[in-house]
Amino acid sequence: MNTHNYIEQNKQKFLDELLDLLRIPSVSADSKFKNDVLKTAEFIKSSLEQAGVDKAEICETAGFPIVYGEKIIDKNLPTVLVYGHYDVQPADPYELWDSPPFEPVIKNDKIYARGACDDKGQMYMHVKAFESMMATNSLTCNVKFMVEGEEEVGSDNLGIFVKENKEKLAADIILISDTSMIDNNTPSLTVGLRGLSYLQVEVTGPNRDLHSGVYGGAVANPINVLCEMIASLKDENNHITIPGFYDKVEELTKEEREALNKAPFDLEEYKKDLDIEETSGEKGYTTLERAGIRPTLDVNGIWGGYTGEGAKTVLPSKAYAKISMRLVPGQKSHEITELFTKHFTSIAPKSVKVKVTPHHGGEPAVTPTDSVAYAAASAAYEEAFGKAPIPTRDGGSIPIVSLFKDELKLNTVLMGFGLDSDAIHSPNEHYGLFNYMKGIETITLFYKHFAEMNK
Amino acid sequence: MNTHNYIEQNKQKFLDELLDLLRIPSVSADSKFKNDVLKTAEFIKSSLEQAGVDKAEICETAGFPIVYGEKIIDKNLPTVLVYGHYDVQPADPYELWDSPPFEPVIKNDKIYARGACDDKGQMYMHVKAFESMMATNSLTCNVKFMVEGEEEVGSDNLGIFVKENKEKLAADIILISDTSMIDNNTPSLTVGLRGLSYLQVEVTGPNRDLHSGVYGGAVANPINVLCEMIASLKDENNHITIPGFYDKVEELTKEEREALNKAPFDLEEYKKDLDIEETSGEKGYTTLERAGIRPTLDVNGIWGGYTGEGAKTVLPSKAYAKISMRLVPGQKSHEITELFTKHFTSIAPKSVKVKVTPHHGGEPAVTPTDSVAYAAASAAYEEAFGKAPIPTRDGGSIPIVSLFKDELKLNTVLMGFGLDSDAIHSPNEHYGLFNYMKGIETITLFYKHFAEMNK
Repeated sequence: MNTHNYIEQNKQKFLDELLDLLRIPSVSADSKFKNDVLKTAEFIKSSLEQAGVDKAEICETAGFPIVYGEKIIDKNLPTVLVYGHYDVQPADPYELWDSPPFEPVIKNDKIYARGACDDKGQMYMHVKAFESMMATNSLTCNVKFMVEGEEEVGSDNLGIFVKENKEKLAADIILISDTSMIDNNTPSLTVGLRGLSYLQVEVTGPNRDLHSGVYGGAVANPINVLCEMIASLKDENNHITIPGFYDKVEELTKEEREALNKAPFDLEEYKKDLDIEETSGEKGYTTLERAGIRPTLDVNGIWGGYTGEGAKTVLPSKAYAKISMRLVPGQKSHEITELFTKHFTSIAPKSVKVKVTPHHGGEPAVTPTDSVAYAAASAAYEEAFGKAPIPTRDGGSIPIVSLFKDELKLNTVLMGFGLDSDAIHSPNEHYGLFNYMKGIETITLFYKHFAEMNK
Repeated sequence: MNTHNYIEQNKQKFLDELLDLLRIPSVSADSKFKNDVLKTAEFIKSSLEQAGVDKAEICETAGFPIVYGEKIIDKNLPTVLVYGHYDVQPADPYELWDSPPFEPVIKNDKIYARGACDDKGQMYMHVKAFESMMATNSLTCNVKFMVEGEEEVGSDNLGIFVKENKEKLAADIILISDTSMIDNNTPSLTVGLRGLSYLQVEVTGPNRDLHSGVYGGAVANPINVLCEMIASLKDENNHITIPGFYDKVEELTKEEREALNKAPFDLEEYKKDLDIEETSGEKGYTTLERAGIRPTLDVNGIWGGYTGEGAKTVLPSKAYAKISMRLVPGQKSHEITELFTKHFTSIAPKSVKVKVTPHHGGEPAVTPTDSVAYAAASAAYEEAFGKAPIPTRDGGSIPIVSLFKDELKLNTVLMGFGLDSDAIHSPNEHYGLFNYMKGIETITLFYKHFAEMNK
């Protein structure tokens, strides 16, 4: 049997196994799911073993473990290092899900569950592609798997693991499916990623909640102050006002920007899909540029005072926000975190106290389009989809791409099969059955072309 | 036995009864406490009956009932209409209470519980003062009690009740204890109150929560927009920017302001108590003025996006805030609510949708200081405390003072015995045993002086 047929015949098995994986709520950000995250690591280890790795192991870290597995068929053949993550984003707000986030359902040929796309679904394609090649004796490269459980909380321990295991992780290329393509008829390969600096801020006014009638107007309200501070972080052109923020941004050339803006994009469709009357962003840039090559500042969460039913006339003691900045090539996460902290602290009025806590960060990255691996990926897409993939710059962040480059001296190919509409990080996250199966097939074709091109 | 001795001898009984009242969590803002609110109304009715009213009744409204009771001893004697409320503020955040909010404890001669001061403690003083006068045959006026259960949610149904029961409520003066005095050695009588306009705003960006990496920078983030809108509501001098907001504010004369600023006030002590380095408020006014005679705008609550543990890179669909404005004489609550709504809607960028929901309002009020009732109250304080009370303007709102003036043509005397440090509306609300007992005594003296002065 050839690989293609194996994949076809095992469609239901591949799907059922993914659904089992999706049923484990591996939310790394919330300690109450700790045991589920650990259980998920065991699930991945066992999946790798069943698929045919020589050995699989749970590698302990200071946080959640990294699952490692490898199949070395011939030291002279090229080696592919697959990276993925088995942890998922929190599912809040639960009430906005049409079905429970950890009870996957199939509707309209899509799998609905937290992690369906990001990254359980996309990561598991690699395990099933590997299984399919093993089962049909068609594996043409050595394979190493490194699947972590802390991607959604900043991959704090991955860097240490990578530094300590350079030899074990030696490879020719890194392969990751954790990005999206333009649409199911327009395959694309991500060649640029934004970095991230994520912080939490706390503004304290009076030492206790006060009655807004007795003290209102005379004592700084930390919510009002927080709003003013956040508002001041952007000017009227939506430029970020933090001194030095743009200093190291590598501007794209006119030609690069033109090429980027040639990607298929329908602004009216985009607005309709989001039900917005107007887009909004940095002056002087298109929507594709704003979402791909420009740094941003978003408040991801805000809270303070009375948020229950009805009314409470409180002047609260504290207000909080989670703020993240997407970074572009040239910017360094820790530098931006420092610039933010310094600036945010400096603009606080004397009537409040401010605390800034860095959460996590990640470096922006660009991947080369002139490599053998890129050519092999391109050929795989062309064979699977009938057309060559378009190179795109993604707005999201996969900080480890930059880490792998620095530590392992390896480039990454980002073979993402998700869609922007998959609602990752949102209620009703889903992943198309087409994408899951097509992804598995395309991945096997990558191995074929990569081995051939390396001959 | 004279009234003073009766009060002394029944101190423990008066306290135990109040503790029983405080054990019922009558939170009117939260529907899960509905039965407790109703139970509290029954408690008040039964207390009035035991104290000696001719009849007490539970008067149904569209919301929570109003407890009414009266004792008419002689139609030729003056009639005092006592107003109070048996509902309390929500106790959130519970984790900041040193003891459970509905399990009252006595510490350092203070009663700690939600409602200890506002307004169960202060309202119940009137029931016990009445009981003391009845028990000692010293009642010198007719008394009517009207105790409502919706003060903390805007007294929506009180206006209807008052309009429909003008004859029943006919009186010579209204007596309320729901304000504070300067300190236990400096009695004061509140002669001015701020009004209130309370609203909830909702800002909607995209129709669903988005991944901030994929969409961040290109789609308006409703939290950022809400912050910008809130920030724009005040200028650099902390003047409120809503057009027309100050148009009808009655400015005080230089003499009135000077008189007001003569009240004992220690700015350093005030800052130390709140642990703030600087006060903050409208330029050109003192702290006492900012908190008493100037209108304000405070965000009482804000929420949106991910507020749990850890980090989530969400660009949320919605952000919310509860915003209230304290109003001063001249301003009308419904007019300010309209001005706010119009302005807030008008400043929304096209990239978001904005919804403004008025919660409740109340009118500002000033009470006369040249009336017989004021003179009687002043004499009562002087007899009880050994010194005449200082007239003050309070920042809080008791909207019904204005309602009573309009509908019943009655003035109010605000005999408040709380302290600003009682933490009403906050965790660890408390009320001094001294204040509770001294309040009961002072109230009985008011009746004595009011009858004498009316002769």
